[in-house]
Amino acid sequence: MGSPATTALHRAVCTLLLASLGCVTGQPLGGESICTARSLARYNLAFAGKWSQTAFPKQYPLFRPPAQWSSLLGTTHSSDYSMWRENEYASNGLRDFVEQGEAWALMKEIEAAGEKLQSVHAVFSAPAVPSGTGQTASELEVHPRHSLVSFVVRIVPSPDWFVGVDSLDLCEGGRWKEQVALDLYPHDAGTDSGFTFSSPNFATIPQATVTEITSSSPSHPANSFYYPKLKSLPPMARVTLVRLRQSARAFVPPALDLVSRGNEITDNLSGPCVWFSSRNAAGL
Amino acid sequence: MGSPATTALHRAVCTLLLASLGCVTGQPLGGESICTARSLARYNLAFAGKWSQTAFPKQYPLFRPPAQWSSLLGTTHSSDYSMWRENEYASNGLRDFVEQGEAWALMKEIEAAGEKLQSVHAVFSAPAVPSGTGQTASELEVHPRHSLVSFVVRIVPSPDWFVGVDSLDLCEGGRWKEQVALDLYPHDAGTDSGFTFSSPNFATIPQATVTEITSSSPSHPANSFYYPKLKSLPPMARVTLVRLRQSARAFVPPALDLVSRGNEITDNLSGPCVWFSSRNAAGL
Repeated sequence: MGSPATTALHRAVCTLLLASLGCVTGQPLGGESICTARSLARYNLAFAGKWSQTAFPKQYPLFRPPAQWSSLLGTTHSSDYSMWRENEYASNGLRDFVEQGEAWALMKEIEAAGEKLQSVHAVFSAPAVPSGTGQTASELEVHPRHSLVSFVVRIVPSPDWFVGVDSLDLCEGGRWKEQVALDLYPHDAGTDSGFTFSSPNFATIPQATVTEITSSSPSHPANSFYYPKLKSLPPMARVTLVRLRQSARAFVPPALDLVSRGNEITDNLSGPCVWFSSRNAAGL
Repeated sequence: MGSPATTALHRAVCTLLLASLGCVTGQPLGGESICTARSLARYNLAFAGKWSQTAFPKQYPLFRPPAQWSSLLGTTHSSDYSMWRENEYASNGLRDFVEQGEAWALMKEIEAAGEKLQSVHAVFSAPAVPSGTGQTASELEVHPRHSLVSFVVRIVPSPDWFVGVDSLDLCEGGRWKEQVALDLYPHDAGTDSGFTFSSPNFATIPQATVTEITSSSPSHPANSFYYPKLKSLPPMARVTLVRLRQSARAFVPPALDLVSRGNEITDNLSGPCVWFSSRNAAGL
């Protein structure tokens, strides 16, 4: 769920930041640039949960199950494939994954796209995280014709909520980016009408589109993320992609521990934005 | 837990089968063969749960949480590294993973082994499986000097029980095996003294070694796997590794669905054995 007005506001903020600060959205920016890099590239992807009771006190899940994250499932692909996209309908595979943590159908959808359209280079995953502020990691490979990264992580417990990245381009003209860090915010897949983390299953009929959940949308006091006094939610997770050299064998970035020490509430206004920040790079 | 007598019996059975049927154990067979393959190889690993209420009726977990599997965490490595081994102590990282599903420490241990001894080629994982009979898949890469595969999957819920493979060699002299299929049986990590799937946490002090759980060991009627009328437990899961050609992009083997349709109780006597079976190959 998520009102069109709020989404429009976020887009406006994002466009503003895009112009002034070099921020880009996770969604393709219209004119697609061609990647002229000559080789494959490998990246370490590190996911750090920031879903603490301090940052998100309302209805914070403590038992059966406590707040945690599902396995991370991702793919590297071309613009002919989309794993998920704001304002579009979730696929059946995505629904199974975000509602039940069942990855199989989504993996098959990705593979089918790879076979039919040659739009997928690889699938990758990272182990589940049994606490809201834990971390996990994976490696992934991109190809000049498949330079986009998408992934999803289910918010557990929740009706159909997830965080993720849609079509992040790791190529910049003729070269691969060295490092990218992004704050992640909760999204609603539009398939289950539950209002709170532990709502019972209740299918949304007809299905709604994928929307970002904000501090004010859905605009109802019962919603688990409704914080009317906050302009925006703090980030719920953070992902960092660091390019690996061929000789490097870093499955787990050595200083990622630093990332998860604090669960600070940032004053970042850019809900749906993706940051390429040298400040964050220094933090590694 | 697991009595030495039972383990010895299993070893005897395995040795017998090894001689007569070409079965090998998951553990290194003493004289280590050198892999002279000239290139890397890629495999699809498919994991199919066979933990049904029909096959394992006793105390089958139905709620909070129902029977399921954690993420799969694995590595390709040389004989200088061991992720887990029967009759040896579990590492702290393995304990965190099999008790709580927390993969981070184990990933760091694997990485440290790679840095210190150059004994690790890569880490891989597959998404969790939210039912006892679901399936998941991953790709992995082996190297002539790192031709062994090990992985673990936590049994959820359980005190510290898991299934997995220890140091399966995918190289056979000068060539990579085309296909390997293995039945998996439950193991106890020796770190938690819980006796049943939903036992509360109760540390085993001093820590015991990793043992296979069988229908008769631990020899106590309260144990979740104690089936005194069965000679051996049915397999709890099955893993199939199929070599991928460079051109192939098969993340999910198309016919794996077949594997999980039945939850047949097999009359296979070879608890801790690893099978290289052309019958199974035909089943793909």
